[in-house]
Amino acid sequence: MDETQTSWREQGKPPMLFKRFAFGSYGQTREFLDALAALAEEIGQHPQNINFGTTYVNITLEAQDGKTIGAPEHAFATRIDALASGPG
Amino acid sequence: MDETQTSWREQGKPPMLFKRFAFGSYGQTREFLDALAALAEEIGQHPQNINFGTTYVNITLEAQDGKTIGAPEHAFATRIDALASGPG
Repeated sequence: MDETQTSWREQGKPPMLFKRFAFGSYGQTREFLDALAALAEEIGQHPQNINFGTTYVNITLEAQDGKTIGAPEHAFATRIDALASGPG
Repeated sequence: MDETQTSWREQGKPPMLFKRFAFGSYGQTREFLDALAALAEEIGQHPQNINFGTTYVNITLEAQDGKTIGAPEHAFATRIDALASGPG
């Protein structure tokens, strides 16, 4: 029931990308959040919203131009996916 | 419009404590989130949900016994308040 979604879902007006990540422990959740903060700092781009509890993180990415989800948003999403599947 | 609430609000069934914190910058938001993670680690107690964007953090604390908001929840809330008003 509470599993990581396989892909990002486009939703809303203005359009946003949304994905839920599930983790087996708070430690894993924390590692993901820390890696996400470091990535955001590195690329100077932040999710519009991050919603988390001890074993899940829901992420919403907004359209950079406020209108359409395109290459920049999908590139950001792909880098976030990599954090969740990375070692550690 | 988007300001830190002056106090925690009790809501829901089972009851929860909720408060919104607003910050002037992402740096301040980040500092608060990091301090909150350290506090949670220290006391082994985690908010049920944390919802944040670049300049706000919404926190929901659940009742430890699943039924009533009491001293433990208010103590946790007070320590979280202290993080937001602390130096730095």
